[in-house]
Amino acid sequence: MELVEKALAGNRRALSRLITVVEAGDATARQALAALYPHTGRAHIVGVTGAPGTGKSTLVNQLALHWRAQGRTVAVLAVDPTSPFSGGAILGDRIRMQALGGDPGCYIRSMASRGSLGGLARSTGDAVKVLDAAGFEIVIVETVGAGQAEVEITREAHTVIVVEIPGMGDDIQAIKAGILEIADVFVVNKADREGAERTLRQLQMMLHLGAGEPRDGWDPPIVQTVANTGKNIPEVAAAVERHLAHLKANDLLAPRERQRIEREWTMIVRESLLNELFARIPASERDTLIARMQARQVDPYAAASQVVAAVFEDSI
Amino acid sequence: MELVEKALAGNRRALSRLITVVEAGDATARQALAALYPHTGRAHIVGVTGAPGTGKSTLVNQLALHWRAQGRTVAVLAVDPTSPFSGGAILGDRIRMQALGGDPGCYIRSMASRGSLGGLARSTGDAVKVLDAAGFEIVIVETVGAGQAEVEITREAHTVIVVEIPGMGDDIQAIKAGILEIADVFVVNKADREGAERTLRQLQMMLHLGAGEPRDGWDPPIVQTVANTGKNIPEVAAAVERHLAHLKANDLLAPRERQRIEREWTMIVRESLLNELFARIPASERDTLIARMQARQVDPYAAASQVVAAVFEDSI
Repeated sequence: MELVEKALAGNRRALSRLITVVEAGDATARQALAALYPHTGRAHIVGVTGAPGTGKSTLVNQLALHWRAQGRTVAVLAVDPTSPFSGGAILGDRIRMQALGGDPGCYIRSMASRGSLGGLARSTGDAVKVLDAAGFEIVIVETVGAGQAEVEITREAHTVIVVEIPGMGDDIQAIKAGILEIADVFVVNKADREGAERTLRQLQMMLHLGAGEPRDGWDPPIVQTVANTGKNIPEVAAAVERHLAHLKANDLLAPRERQRIEREWTMIVRESLLNELFARIPASERDTLIARMQARQVDPYAAASQVVAAVFEDSI
Repeated sequence: MELVEKALAGNRRALSRLITVVEAGDATARQALAALYPHTGRAHIVGVTGAPGTGKSTLVNQLALHWRAQGRTVAVLAVDPTSPFSGGAILGDRIRMQALGGDPGCYIRSMASRGSLGGLARSTGDAVKVLDAAGFEIVIVETVGAGQAEVEITREAHTVIVVEIPGMGDDIQAIKAGILEIADVFVVNKADREGAERTLRQLQMMLHLGAGEPRDGWDPPIVQTVANTGKNIPEVAAAVERHLAHLKANDLLAPRERQRIEREWTMIVRESLLNELFARIPASERDTLIARMQARQVDPYAAASQVVAAVFEDSI
């Protein structure tokens, strides 16, 4: 595909168009992904997540500037899973574009969910492939929030940064339970605020409570930053780089990637099985089944078995 | 099933065991759901969502106490989608149990995600069916956070309450974009705090900006509460009841339920198609495919087409 060739050759407009193409998830998208897939697998993919208001975007900007200053190329995908219907872009995105814009070694793009969470995870994964194939050495995937959505999306990453700030509410404990297990690096941002030391100690305590053995033999470091002033940004970057070195030194990159590929492939198989089946069930038959469920004549599991069994009766 | 009969007859221990049974999602769960499904469709299902720290749990407790005082039976499902790995329960759950415990007209249960978000949405939906069939007049589904996870879970509800508090961060705008479209009733909790009027005005402005026509002809009311002291709890309950009356008066309940059933059935079909297919692919064949993807010899979409096409070649 000409568009793929142009994007991989460094044409910025082609790159943007190519991401739009793969976002669509249609036959053209699949064709483009087939063409660029052999070029993937080289970027260091870094996930950044944390609750709203933790200053993730500022931190990501500073990290991008830091790595650019060291001569490394950086792409940023800002993903917003909190906007399932409106497709609105993350606020301040244009301001960020200005700060880093015009630099050919840096690319920023925001992605909003247009449909399901599954759709967003898919399109984010495919956009990461485009940026990876285009040769960006570091691809940062930034997500808002602290729920399942981010967990799904950060699974794309080799290294996950979780951003906290001092003095969150009571629910922080509940959030941490899940977050502890995805974080490779913790950042306590806005560390010039009251309570930073307390948040640091809480995190340390939870890390030591939760873990018998640290996952993959890696003990997640905690870095205190003030992203607004750039304080300790090099320390965060160094922690991220040490984590990748750790994965490489212990032969952990390949098995992690295998898991990621299996998960992604499974997701694609699941969606296309459903699409193929639904294309073969007449609308009237579906309506009748749903009406029977609504009348409580058949339950959803029994109604599902019925159509699924018909598929596998004669096949394989 | 004996367990189903006992639970529907009001046996509290059987009810708890039955929810554990349906949570498992196995053959026994499907059998139980088939038995209780004819008894569902009577409860008013109320979703409550909002960011961590907004005081949702206190609000839900107060609503439950209010409705109990009016002689109505209430069940609460506290769902935590932020804890994808640990399966930890929502904090303070035991304290809540104490406040409302011992009352046979009230039932509280917390659910944590043990696997995927899809799994949690499924098990929550099935637990709602159990409580509905058991005759609870109001079933409250409470979720933490403000992302896609809650959106999925609140889709179960007839009426959705979104809880805000004064003085959230900048990201509130981004969150609202999605939340606006699922909220039937807004609550500004902790309204004795500074900034409550400003939050109220912001919400009003966003509601009027966003909407050309209000969805389903319903203009979501905004209620200011102080859940800790019980202030304006009857007003929230009244707004929720008015919303149900509005749905009934405008024949909107049946089409909403039809959508919910179609969504749920589709989710079940999708999962069981995948399970049936994977049960038929030898592990060695799957491993070879994944190895080829990892070597960039085939892309995930092409590898998926391959196995999906084999299913539908001979069938239907």
